[in-house]
Amino acid sequence: MPANPNSDFVLLNPRDSVVVALRGFQAGDTLALGEEAIQLLDSVPPGHKVAIRPVAAGEPIFKFGWSIGVATKPIRVGQHVHTQNVKCDHHIDLEAISTDVPAELPRLEGHTFEGFRRADGRVGTRNYLAVISNVNCSASVARMIASRFDQQTLAAFPNVDGVISFRHEGGCAMAFNGSRHRMLSRVLGGMARHPNIGGFLLVGLGCEQGTLDHLVQSQGLHSIAIPGQASGSGDAGQGEAVPVLSIQSAGGTSKTVERGVEIAAGLLKQVNGFQRETVPASHLVLGTECGGSDGYSGITANPALGAAADRLVACGGTAILSETSEIFGAEHLLTRRARSRAVAEKLLERIEWWKWYCSNYGEELDNNPSVGNKAGGLTTITEKSLGAVSKGGTTPLEAVYEYAEPVQQQGFVVMDTPGFDPASVTGMVAGGANLIAFTTGRGSCFGSKPTPTFKIASNTRLFQQLPEDMDFNAGQVVEGRSVDEVGQELFSRLLDTASGKSTCSEALGIGDEEFVPWLVGPVL
Amino acid sequence: MPANPNSDFVLLNPRDSVVVALRGFQAGDTLALGEEAIQLLDSVPPGHKVAIRPVAAGEPIFKFGWSIGVATKPIRVGQHVHTQNVKCDHHIDLEAISTDVPAELPRLEGHTFEGFRRADGRVGTRNYLAVISNVNCSASVARMIASRFDQQTLAAFPNVDGVISFRHEGGCAMAFNGSRHRMLSRVLGGMARHPNIGGFLLVGLGCEQGTLDHLVQSQGLHSIAIPGQASGSGDAGQGEAVPVLSIQSAGGTSKTVERGVEIAAGLLKQVNGFQRETVPASHLVLGTECGGSDGYSGITANPALGAAADRLVACGGTAILSETSEIFGAEHLLTRRARSRAVAEKLLERIEWWKWYCSNYGEELDNNPSVGNKAGGLTTITEKSLGAVSKGGTTPLEAVYEYAEPVQQQGFVVMDTPGFDPASVTGMVAGGANLIAFTTGRGSCFGSKPTPTFKIASNTRLFQQLPEDMDFNAGQVVEGRSVDEVGQELFSRLLDTASGKSTCSEALGIGDEEFVPWLVGPVL
Ligand SMILES: [Ca+2]
Ligand SMILES: [Ca+2]
Ligand SMILES: [Ca+2]
Ligand SMILES: [Ca+2]
Ligand SMILES: [Ca+2]
Repeated sequence: MPANPNSDFVLLNPRDSVVVALRGFQAGDTLALGEEAIQLLDSVPPGHKVAIRPVAAGEPIFKFGWSIGVATKPIRVGQHVHTQNVKCDHHIDLEAISTDVPAELPRLEGHTFEGFRRADGRVGTRNYLAVISNVNCSASVARMIASRFDQQTLAAFPNVDGVISFRHEGGCAMAFNGSRHRMLSRVLGGMARHPNIGGFLLVGLGCEQGTLDHLVQSQGLHSIAIPGQASGSGDAGQGEAVPVLSIQSAGGTSKTVERGVEIAAGLLKQVNGFQRETVPASHLVLGTECGGSDGYSGITANPALGAAADRLVACGGTAILSETSEIFGAEHLLTRRARSRAVAEKLLERIEWWKWYCSNYGEELDNNPSVGNKAGGLTTITEKSLGAVSKGGTTPLEAVYEYAEPVQQQGFVVMDTPGFDPASVTGMVAGGANLIAFTTGRGSCFGSKPTPTFKIASNTRLFQQLPEDMDFNAGQVVEGRSVDEVGQELFSRLLDTASGKSTCSEALGIGDEEFVPWLVGPVL
Repeated sequence: MPANPNSDFVLLNPRDSVVVALRGFQAGDTLALGEEAIQLLDSVPPGHKVAIRPVAAGEPIFKFGWSIGVATKPIRVGQHVHTQNVKCDHHIDLEAISTDVPAELPRLEGHTFEGFRRADGRVGTRNYLAVISNVNCSASVARMIASRFDQQTLAAFPNVDGVISFRHEGGCAMAFNGSRHRMLSRVLGGMARHPNIGGFLLVGLGCEQGTLDHLVQSQGLHSIAIPGQASGSGDAGQGEAVPVLSIQSAGGTSKTVERGVEIAAGLLKQVNGFQRETVPASHLVLGTECGGSDGYSGITANPALGAAADRLVACGGTAILSETSEIFGAEHLLTRRARSRAVAEKLLERIEWWKWYCSNYGEELDNNPSVGNKAGGLTTITEKSLGAVSKGGTTPLEAVYEYAEPVQQQGFVVMDTPGFDPASVTGMVAGGANLIAFTTGRGSCFGSKPTPTFKIASNTRLFQQLPEDMDFNAGQVVEGRSVDEVGQELFSRLLDTASGKSTCSEALGIGDEEFVPWLVGPVL
């Protein structure tokens, strides 16, 4: 297990050949690594790497438990490891697929949270009523309906976390069933079916290209019922027709708002019928995200989140890694962890798609460390990407999903999303994530609905500067606590969040502007 | 001038060879056209065309004053004109550029409105304080700042129309200075400099790719001063530094909101210093838009709006036609109206760009009439597109602008935008449109800020069904009033709107969700 006996350096994985210096060192200084004392042969700036094992020329250098590149000359213990003696080794080896699948973690029993059980067996961490806008043309009406349910009105419904509207900038002027339409349908369908949604209402204009009928049918939507209780005339969980409003049919803005408020008021009673009960942690689907990263993100917050993700996977739960543009550079290592060739190939196919997506506009899929990254100690694209990937933990890669696809596989999975925080989180939430953990080094006030986002500062300075926005300080890792200890504490805090404890962004009321479906394809 | 002596048919332009039937006719029925009586040789469904002049095989058929295609056989007066005797003639003739530039309209004098004069000489039709979010990561904070200024607070500032936030889904995870970044900067810069904005505040997170500094510098932003009054230490109109807030520097969500509210409260006094005064109609920049069109749009609302646009141009004002995807099919006629070869070539270059944009995703730029359109009487892509283009009027094409570029040319101009209503209107508003006229046949509850949107129903049924959303009934055109008469009344109503009379969407409080910058390029 990662150890960090003091705040001089951090060892990220037992198989690593380097540690990361947490402060500047001079040649001749000594690092105490367990029983060993390593004498530095070079000066090493903070954030940079020191060899703790000899590495022969042409051999890989391990950090995060994976090769970040190969030595261009023999490296001795205590030497500074950087561009002068490492070169990038980012290449796909199809022979290596599934050759490094980590051993199953010992099953962790007994971890639970208080959640809302739904008819389909999934469990919510929140219980919202949703007003879902089908097209930008109905966004204002959806917002007006939701905003009529203020705290005073909601006081009578103690099991309801709120009435929220999902508004977006798409829904028309797109090819019918083209990529833009399919992606939006997946996102809106995913929200309607989300385990954190106890009831929903769809609102459209009427003449939009992506019709409400198509949404309901393509996404298999049905009205929500409480498990074990019949809903009206229908079966439990497969009840009455989906509540749908069209502004053109309803007679315009005001009439649609009034009718929507009536429908929502009726649904509220039903949503309030759901209650929290104790369920195993295996029902958690944790979406991991990083935004506004700094030099500490890859050595504190992301590995600590990875350690928490490993615990969740050991409990039988699911951890999603997304942000394909930041995975790029480490995908050749994820393929080694892939459970099967099909899983690995799906990841590689998404990477190829991304190269095409960027090249369309004369841009390049490029996650290479910038000049500033290099000065901060990052040597190769693989090292930088592994810093992002480390937040997903160390377990086998079980599945790869397209954007906003329903995540059904337990264990560690990848979803193809942009790195852009709101678009990435929206995709994971639509895929069923009922908990988001978000690491940041520069600071962020991101929040999401209906899934809470728990924000993790990579450094103590940030945690102190944005105290109302940061939920957790992973800067503890550079202050003498091990990644694993911090990950354990984080896991426990995530369970509390799942059980209903408010995150910072929930307390601040954030999450209404951050619903950002990623829609690829022309706006016509 | 267009004449419509009864409600049997409509003649859209004096040079037309067809009229459009407004009801079904049988062979043998008679149409009274001025002095003439035309006997129908075929049955003609409503919305379809009847020849009022003989057309030889191979000769063009005129509707909207332009060729919608060529006769495939001789057509006699009274015959049904449709796919059986017309073929499409959509091709670019570079020799024809600027060969059909309409004569200058007689200058219309004396039309004025009550507007807010700004230091740069432009005139606002509204007077808002804007809180502009630089990136999605600051959208919630921007909204929270603006929402603190409720009607009660604003009662003390009678010249201020409101405090609005501009929030969007972009601003990071994009190539620096790539197309996505440049388009967003143009939109945000256009909003900050908009004549309907009397003061603004920029809010960002701090680590976004498109920095606030870059926005301020690339867009030449400066704080707004009242003409003739020095603002602090600076020159009039080129005053103090732009008010800017970064959430990471300000200490998080709450502190940024509090600081933003303070800054906005200070700016409010200044914004309130602007007052309406009588100015010539030439200061209007009218953006035209259609959304949710029906079979009437091209024969009532769009031509009536075109007649109003012609009046505005005759006053020395500006009318913008946008929606390139709906212009396609008639661009070869706009080039004939182009003032110069350079203007025509810019339009053709945008059309080529659109073909590329659609083909990237295996789609086609295709504005051809659908099966339903054909059944409704539309014969060719040119006819369909001319129906959309007709809302821009009949005057020479003076300039072509890219999305959200500042519109500085007076007269009739084109801006390259998608047909998607919120994206198209956002581009025109960012370009400086201080009035939007929006035609619809199916119905819409679109609204925009800071520029009012005036909505025009293409048919009386819609006007009656959505009474709180529709500002004007162009269905009068099929009830015996001429396009020109209705256009004249519309122009007068548009002047009232410019002077401060609320539109339906303003009364309903719509326009906060419809700010949708069109951003082309990968989300990284
Ligand atoms: Ca949104
Ligand atoms: Ca990131
Ligand atoms: Ca991110
Ligand atoms: Ca928006
Ligand atoms: Ca439109």
